[in-house]
Amino acid sequence: MTDLKHKILTAVTEDLSAIEKALNENLNPHFDLVSRVAGHILFAGGKRLRPLLMILCARLCGYTDRNTARFSTIFEYLHAATLLHDDVVDGATLRRGKQVANHKWDTPTTVLTGDFLLARGLSIASQTGSYEVIETIAEITENMSQGEIRQLERKGDISLTEEDYLEVIHCKTAVLFQGACRTGGLVAGAATDRVKRLADYGYHLGMAFQMADDLLDYTQDSSSLGKHAGADLREGKLTLPLIYSLAWAKDKDRKQMVALLNNPDFSQPEFVHLVEMMKTYGGIAYTQTQADMHIQKAKAAIEPFEDFTTQEILVDIAEYALVRKL
Amino acid sequence: MTDLKHKILTAVTEDLSAIEKALNENLNPHFDLVSRVAGHILFAGGKRLRPLLMILCARLCGYTDRNTARFSTIFEYLHAATLLHDDVVDGATLRRGKQVANHKWDTPTTVLTGDFLLARGLSIASQTGSYEVIETIAEITENMSQGEIRQLERKGDISLTEEDYLEVIHCKTAVLFQGACRTGGLVAGAATDRVKRLADYGYHLGMAFQMADDLLDYTQDSSSLGKHAGADLREGKLTLPLIYSLAWAKDKDRKQMVALLNNPDFSQPEFVHLVEMMKTYGGIAYTQTQADMHIQKAKAAIEPFEDFTTQEILVDIAEYALVRKL
Repeated sequence: MTDLKHKILTAVTEDLSAIEKALNENLNPHFDLVSRVAGHILFAGGKRLRPLLMILCARLCGYTDRNTARFSTIFEYLHAATLLHDDVVDGATLRRGKQVANHKWDTPTTVLTGDFLLARGLSIASQTGSYEVIETIAEITENMSQGEIRQLERKGDISLTEEDYLEVIHCKTAVLFQGACRTGGLVAGAATDRVKRLADYGYHLGMAFQMADDLLDYTQDSSSLGKHAGADLREGKLTLPLIYSLAWAKDKDRKQMVALLNNPDFSQPEFVHLVEMMKTYGGIAYTQTQADMHIQKAKAAIEPFEDFTTQEILVDIAEYALVRKL
Repeated sequence: MTDLKHKILTAVTEDLSAIEKALNENLNPHFDLVSRVAGHILFAGGKRLRPLLMILCARLCGYTDRNTARFSTIFEYLHAATLLHDDVVDGATLRRGKQVANHKWDTPTTVLTGDFLLARGLSIASQTGSYEVIETIAEITENMSQGEIRQLERKGDISLTEEDYLEVIHCKTAVLFQGACRTGGLVAGAATDRVKRLADYGYHLGMAFQMADDLLDYTQDSSSLGKHAGADLREGKLTLPLIYSLAWAKDKDRKQMVALLNNPDFSQPEFVHLVEMMKTYGGIAYTQTQADMHIQKAKAAIEPFEDFTTQEILVDIAEYALVRKL
């Protein structure tokens, strides 16, 4: 474990326990099967980053009500719901090193359990007593589903631009981080400009987080990734490292890259060669720079807050998002 | 068209136009594909029964705000979302006489468009300014997904009892009718006991509606049904006509029924013979009686309301639910 990770985990030990307890207590399924399928994804070693962000943002605004952990489950339930639906979408077989739910059970059960988790998130949102929170949650769900649809629609489309990519990752990833941080401010009853700053922190963190994730798909081996490396490429999913490299590649290399993108059965040496080309054309470095820029903006957004202890944890989390697996 | 159907449609012409307009205006997708997939299910000749019930229940309480049509879209969006997810679940190929979305597009796009519609329903619910409405909507979604999971889990299970069946159809169908009618009362600001009466009307109507639907799967031909007759049997889905018949059948006949239930490739003559047996053992008549009982309770629930014009339409709808296709 890196020093930074250790430092963060030590600072949030109690919060993580409270989140874990709340996730268990608030699931409330009628039937055993729902509990098993939801549990398969919910209790598979998730980092609880999204609920943690909500709790920390609320605390940054001076709010320490004990309901915070319960409200924070909204963001893990929504996240788990999208993971279940994504697995159906992606056709992947592994998630967090475990068999995906739609292989262990079936697609229908997985889809319906995702629906249940979405609904649980909304039920708990309705208990916050804040229309702004409820609207935030509904908007998150609208955006996430549309981001995924957009990504799916553009699969294998080599004309995808950096702008298109940014729109997709905003919808599918950053809105949830943004919403979690925004909700932290809202439940704390913070002033509008402060809520806006927290939302900005979440947005930039989410953008950087997804960019780092997309980089990892090219730079890390399968065992530490908990899923198969090169998965994005295999699914024809264009992400920033490849988009940038395609734009700058010489014709010959560009053709090779496109051929790989259109061949889900590429070999390991072919994949390694692609990553080399992406390094040559700067796709890896550019993505790192962009992710870093978002992290700087995230940190700047929370600078004016006075609770320096909590602020430091949020800064650490932002920095860790960048270095975690690079 | 029957006289009763004609009478109802004449009475609600303006409401149906307002619903149609609101469904179009409130969909608000970012992307064209979402609009096409959602439109495929939304504008395929649905009866708009659920939004209509909300509007009529609000009117029964003296509420005629022009926002009612917009709020009523919640129930059609939720309904369409569950139809999209059900089609993935059921593996059927036809819905309302059209190819199902997951055949026309694919399963992932269908699942995600369903998510988008769920989220739209929630977003609009958050605009009602009533926590009770929002909670009602969240609970509907929780119950519907669980009802479907339960049904799926018990597929082909001949030990399914009438009680199990009632629990499933309550969750998967009646809660949405109940929620639509309840919401009508809530947006009208009606007293608690009146809201309860409207919810009861919706509940009993929904139960009867699903029973009538389950009967139709045995008693009507494919062309007027808009999907393939015998679909429930083919999917191993036990419904009340069969559950009752199985309970009362002689050993020899019972074995024949179970054999058909376990053979999705049954022939048309085999199906006709099964329906004959179900008539003999009273499964058809019993289901009709039960549906009728629920309709009587639905009508009784709205008796004390003073707006006789609206009350009459709701009574007509209840009666039509029973006779519509039997």
